[in-house]
Amino acid sequence: MRAVDIIIKKRDKQELSGPEIEYFIRGYTAGEIPDYQAAAWAMAVLINGMTSRETTDLTLAMAYSGETLDLSRVVSIALDKHSTGGVGDKTTLVVEPIVAACGLPVGKMSGRGLGFSGGTLDKLESIPGYRTNLTTEEFLQQLAEDGLVLTGQTADLAPADGKLYALRDVTGTVQSILLIASSVMSKKIAAGGQAIVLDVKVGLGAFMQTLDEARSLARLMVDIAHLADRKAVALLSDMNQPLGHAVGNAMEVREAIDTLHGNGPSDFRQHCLEIASHMLVLGGKAETDTLGRKLAQEALANGTAWERFKRLVVRQGGDVRFVEEPQRLPQAPLIRMVESPDSGYIERIDAREVGETAVTLGAGRARKGETIDHAVGIEILHKVGDFVQAGQPLFVVHARNEADFEAACQQLLAAHRWSHEAISPLPHFYGVIR
Amino acid sequence: MRAVDIIIKKRDKQELSGPEIEYFIRGYTAGEIPDYQAAAWAMAVLINGMTSRETTDLTLAMAYSGETLDLSRVVSIALDKHSTGGVGDKTTLVVEPIVAACGLPVGKMSGRGLGFSGGTLDKLESIPGYRTNLTTEEFLQQLAEDGLVLTGQTADLAPADGKLYALRDVTGTVQSILLIASSVMSKKIAAGGQAIVLDVKVGLGAFMQTLDEARSLARLMVDIAHLADRKAVALLSDMNQPLGHAVGNAMEVREAIDTLHGNGPSDFRQHCLEIASHMLVLGGKAETDTLGRKLAQEALANGTAWERFKRLVVRQGGDVRFVEEPQRLPQAPLIRMVESPDSGYIERIDAREVGETAVTLGAGRARKGETIDHAVGIEILHKVGDFVQAGQPLFVVHARNEADFEAACQQLLAAHRWSHEAISPLPHFYGVIR
Repeated sequence: MRAVDIIIKKRDKQELSGPEIEYFIRGYTAGEIPDYQAAAWAMAVLINGMTSRETTDLTLAMAYSGETLDLSRVVSIALDKHSTGGVGDKTTLVVEPIVAACGLPVGKMSGRGLGFSGGTLDKLESIPGYRTNLTTEEFLQQLAEDGLVLTGQTADLAPADGKLYALRDVTGTVQSILLIASSVMSKKIAAGGQAIVLDVKVGLGAFMQTLDEARSLARLMVDIAHLADRKAVALLSDMNQPLGHAVGNAMEVREAIDTLHGNGPSDFRQHCLEIASHMLVLGGKAETDTLGRKLAQEALANGTAWERFKRLVVRQGGDVRFVEEPQRLPQAPLIRMVESPDSGYIERIDAREVGETAVTLGAGRARKGETIDHAVGIEILHKVGDFVQAGQPLFVVHARNEADFEAACQQLLAAHRWSHEAISPLPHFYGVIR
Repeated sequence: MRAVDIIIKKRDKQELSGPEIEYFIRGYTAGEIPDYQAAAWAMAVLINGMTSRETTDLTLAMAYSGETLDLSRVVSIALDKHSTGGVGDKTTLVVEPIVAACGLPVGKMSGRGLGFSGGTLDKLESIPGYRTNLTTEEFLQQLAEDGLVLTGQTADLAPADGKLYALRDVTGTVQSILLIASSVMSKKIAAGGQAIVLDVKVGLGAFMQTLDEARSLARLMVDIAHLADRKAVALLSDMNQPLGHAVGNAMEVREAIDTLHGNGPSDFRQHCLEIASHMLVLGGKAETDTLGRKLAQEALANGTAWERFKRLVVRQGGDVRFVEEPQRLPQAPLIRMVESPDSGYIERIDAREVGETAVTLGAGRARKGETIDHAVGIEILHKVGDFVQAGQPLFVVHARNEADFEAACQQLLAAHRWSHEAISPLPHFYGVIR
């Protein structure tokens, strides 16, 4: 077998066999197949496509390219969730404690934010002391003993995916639904989750801009999960406007804590209940979504979800006083409200622009490895469809200094659009793929 | 400008601007754009295509990526020819002296053989002492003084093309008519030829297997030449069977010398006269192909072409006794004739198989940089359409040893096919693209 022949086969729109895909991925991971061959191959895959069978073979080859976790050693069924990335998406912080409170083990490895899209690890690290670097042994032990873990990757999971993703990033081969699906699922499979709820975002602030693309991605990821013998369901959720109000790390943790106390923005609470209900159904705790939602609501109402969250923070070394009194979490030196310059129905709050503004303020990173400022961020006070009067509060900027505030303010005003005619609110969800 | 955005633009089937192509090629040549980005870009170009304008911009960017020769400093018009590569193609050795004998300056930089396809430099080097490594100054001086030069590249002409070609070779991106055309023409333009006859081979022993592909390539190369302000004409010529009889370096030189003496295989002589006539028309020495052919025939008949060839050999340091008495040129220790095992009309003599057999014998190289044996090779004694009786001579193998002879013999018998019904001879040419 020669790498160049595998490239040529895909270039000529032929279907690659399982052994060919495995040979290519194994060779690439081992450094025997160079970046330039992988880049040509990725471009051919992006343009010419792959069958579901090829995509599943690719996913499994990447999943098994390094260490894999066998969670069945410690729990009967381990739940996982994954979001394709959005703005203001602090869902994991609320949903995982809910599901754990309902008695299902949740072991999740989260990622960091990049570009306009935030990451759960960055949010958690605004809690002083919270460890996001558990070892594999610590992960398994905590899952067995506490039934709830929220950390970064414990080991070099799916190294092929890491290497290929970095290459795709610089060769114009990110925007392939097939490659995105196999990237996400290879990590999920390597991380050992047996039942996975996929939160596929669609809209301005998501990687998938159209419902068709999002649906294809969701369908493919669920199919791969099934072919790899995992339970999975995908929800198509709106990401045209930010989720909840807060965008920024410590600010989002505060909003999550609010929500765990039974408060929080309505759209975000609904979102969490929906995701949690599907996890509860998948894990066998509830027979229907409606029953799952009821269980989830109870876990919020009776305080057990909140107790689970606190226990998680303590177990992972975080200073619990910072979540008990969330005003202690990092605060920006300059916090200033901005009024609406116009009256009308809000027609658009461009989530991507809001996410980019957060990066400008320092809450996110333009490039991998950059440090971030946990204190800064934005509160968006309205939702699409709301009527606002000129002079009413529109958003609050938490900035490091005046110059940052000014830049963010301009960017956020441009992200809003007003209409004289009534505008319908955006839906929360567009469908479920099973 | 960022390389990744240029890749994405081509991935999305958009037309690249001149400055974008120049930025990419300049960056790649300078090592600022890495191989993996160039590989992804080349695959996108191969699959999604380019306009003639883009292809010309690419060609010029590569042509001007290094030193270029300005032949107008030394001659009023410099003629050049280029063959896309074939088996038994020793045309340059005969045509260039003919054209020079007719009074037009010819300055040609030839290449080496690779795989089944031979190269003029390798053939010339079977003449002891012949220098194929003239400097740029020597090239220009000889062109001015003698009006005939036949050497390797004098300098690092079109280094972008050399680098990109090596990358394409290992990334499955060779088979693109656009990239082949720009590769050929970038070197021709950098080498300074002002009027170029392109011999585009088509058939089993050519890189272009179909007439449609060959015609597209020819059209594109001629268009590029015109857009780059050069005169050009392309001939589509047959390469299903070997050209002439001899395949192998010294053997081909002997056949060329025979032809310069007015003898040689009929198909090869016709081929040389046709190419020469178009060069004479392009250079303004003849008004029509017919007149050009007449001039060329005279140059063979009156011995001036042969005199020109001898002068060339002497001028470039070759030992003229080896061309005056060509039996002195390297001879293989084992020369053995093989009889036809069958009677019938010859239906096929697979030129590619014959070329591969020459590589097996040591006359060619499977990989760049390998040494070759100038003595060994093959004489194919018939042409498609000939009737042969079983027991009549079919071919002659010039081998290093018995084992090589046996292997070559099997390969060559398999390359022949007989028919009981009459078979038409193959045409020499399929058309002219102006």
